[in-house]
Amino acid sequence: MNNNYYCVIMAGGIGARFWPMSRTNTPKQFIDILGDGSTLIQKTFNRFRKICPAENIYIVTNEIYKDIVKEQLPKITDEQLVLEPARRNTAPCIAYANYKIKQKNPNAVVVVAPSDHLILKEDVFIDVIEKGLTAVEHNDCLLTIGIKPSCPNTGYGYIQFNEDKFLPENKNIYDVKVFTEKPSLEIAKQFVESGEFLWNAGIFMWSLKSIFNAFELFLPEVNDLFKQGEGLYNTPNELPFIKQIYQVCKNISIDYGVMEKAKNVKVYAADFGWSDLGTWGSLFELRDKNEDNNAIVGKKVLTYNSHNCIVNVPKNKVVVLQGLEDYIVVENDDVLLICKKEDEQQIRQYVADVQVEFGNKYV
Amino acid sequence: MNNNYYCVIMAGGIGARFWPMSRTNTPKQFIDILGDGSTLIQKTFNRFRKICPAENIYIVTNEIYKDIVKEQLPKITDEQLVLEPARRNTAPCIAYANYKIKQKNPNAVVVVAPSDHLILKEDVFIDVIEKGLTAVEHNDCLLTIGIKPSCPNTGYGYIQFNEDKFLPENKNIYDVKVFTEKPSLEIAKQFVESGEFLWNAGIFMWSLKSIFNAFELFLPEVNDLFKQGEGLYNTPNELPFIKQIYQVCKNISIDYGVMEKAKNVKVYAADFGWSDLGTWGSLFELRDKNEDNNAIVGKKVLTYNSHNCIVNVPKNKVVVLQGLEDYIVVENDDVLLICKKEDEQQIRQYVADVQVEFGNKYV
Repeated sequence: MNNNYYCVIMAGGIGARFWPMSRTNTPKQFIDILGDGSTLIQKTFNRFRKICPAENIYIVTNEIYKDIVKEQLPKITDEQLVLEPARRNTAPCIAYANYKIKQKNPNAVVVVAPSDHLILKEDVFIDVIEKGLTAVEHNDCLLTIGIKPSCPNTGYGYIQFNEDKFLPENKNIYDVKVFTEKPSLEIAKQFVESGEFLWNAGIFMWSLKSIFNAFELFLPEVNDLFKQGEGLYNTPNELPFIKQIYQVCKNISIDYGVMEKAKNVKVYAADFGWSDLGTWGSLFELRDKNEDNNAIVGKKVLTYNSHNCIVNVPKNKVVVLQGLEDYIVVENDDVLLICKKEDEQQIRQYVADVQVEFGNKYV
Repeated sequence: MNNNYYCVIMAGGIGARFWPMSRTNTPKQFIDILGDGSTLIQKTFNRFRKICPAENIYIVTNEIYKDIVKEQLPKITDEQLVLEPARRNTAPCIAYANYKIKQKNPNAVVVVAPSDHLILKEDVFIDVIEKGLTAVEHNDCLLTIGIKPSCPNTGYGYIQFNEDKFLPENKNIYDVKVFTEKPSLEIAKQFVESGEFLWNAGIFMWSLKSIFNAFELFLPEVNDLFKQGEGLYNTPNELPFIKQIYQVCKNISIDYGVMEKAKNVKVYAADFGWSDLGTWGSLFELRDKNEDNNAIVGKKVLTYNSHNCIVNVPKNKVVVLQGLEDYIVVENDDVLLICKKEDEQQIRQYVADVQVEFGNKYV
């Protein structure tokens, strides 16, 4: 295992679409959303432990989730926690994590990944990440992972790659032509048909040297803030320094702030059974189904004349469902949601309404 | 208030159709099914307190419900409890209650009524019962109450009355021609159109003298068993005696055993907003509805694009319902039921399945 390999797991999201399973105090990455005994962040951590030493894995999250991270990942030390005092999108927290890592190992090669995605083919994933890290170790580039699209999903960003320009040592790593945010269905169809587009999985790899160069070029105001802290990272002075600069730090994504602007961006075309688990519908596709095509997490659920439902209930709850087609049925603690799968995008609105009507306790 | 007036409230049922609100350890009569703060047996007791002295009200129930009756009706003394050691249908428990009352007051005039029916027009009900008790005090007859049918309901028994033969002092009390059990829809329609049929509400009135005569004539084997206990009722010897005779006592209803055979049966045609609350559907009809015609018991329920549903959930539970038409949604403790209203007759089957799959705890 290469001691220069580092991993930054981003775990600051609040996952409102999985309400009421995900709640403000227990967002999606901290729940066992597949019902198989481990949470998404635990799955992510265990996956990366096969790629880099456990002590090289950093968790970026909001300071309010410090305790839950330590509970779910007991091997993570306080020094490996990158705690944000406020939400500033991905660029600032990546800068922060990079500076912390630089203080430990300026030769680090880093993979940055979300904590709440699903990877079905772990062996393929590990192979891709290891080869990607090798590539960025030897090439001054910013590497992102592009997933071969299986359908014209309009919820993802797309990356157009140049099929004629690939690394000689890895013919799956191409130069990027352009990033496109969530397209219309018509355009998404054209993208998929062309064979030139990949889904942006939000997984990045780079050497510290390459990413610092990019920050200096494209986000100097962010970079300068965090650069002031050199010498403070991994010391008791880190926390007050961070609290201070986060107040004034720009809110910007790494995609918009860096990836879409840099000239040395490459994409690793891969296929490892990836899902961002962005919606109940995407989870339904991935879960095991019963004979009536219901995807059920729960130990005491009986279904009658019900099909294509996704059900998440506590294991001790007896649930009888009859006559439901294509519904989401979720119970978590003091909240029950019953909603048509096709209308799941409205869940955000329901959460907002519940907050107004009944208070923060339930969201 | 006439001290000879007595009331026997029958509270031995298990109300499986209202599962999971009703459970074996808390059947329908013991739950606040309307969500207005009092249980059905409490409503029934309070209604009869306006007709006869509280100490003249007897509660017939299974011995397993003794504690819940005493909790819900603290004014009821142990002597007013008619506890059955086994379920033997209505004739034996009525005989039992009659003998207990006879020991106190052989001149008693008794109304027997279910504990779990709904009466919307209480003033009319009280007037009917008082006039009915007066009638049976002065006439040797067995009086039942017949409800003017509002629709051809096939779930009720029907009583054909003789419109030419009524009591001179009360022209709503007619001779009975025939009792008919639950008819087909076609026949029920004919019954309603003819104007000669009433729904059998299962509420009876008689003097002890008249009912003992009827038992001697039509159910002598039941009567003889309970007659042996004269001198034991309302003493410490009552309980062991009852335990013994219930083992051998016939299982038979008062309708089949007595009412359908006796010649001196009369029916009081009445209309006091009665429902036997036999199904979730009947409850839906009676409950207040919100602007989308949903009948909701629960304090934190939000509905979206949902209509004609009946919802019963704990007051602290946040429930979001979307896209449901004509459903029953009930949560009680550790059980959740979601079922189409039109299929509610299958609930008995679900309860049986839950018992087999997950145990008695949930039924």
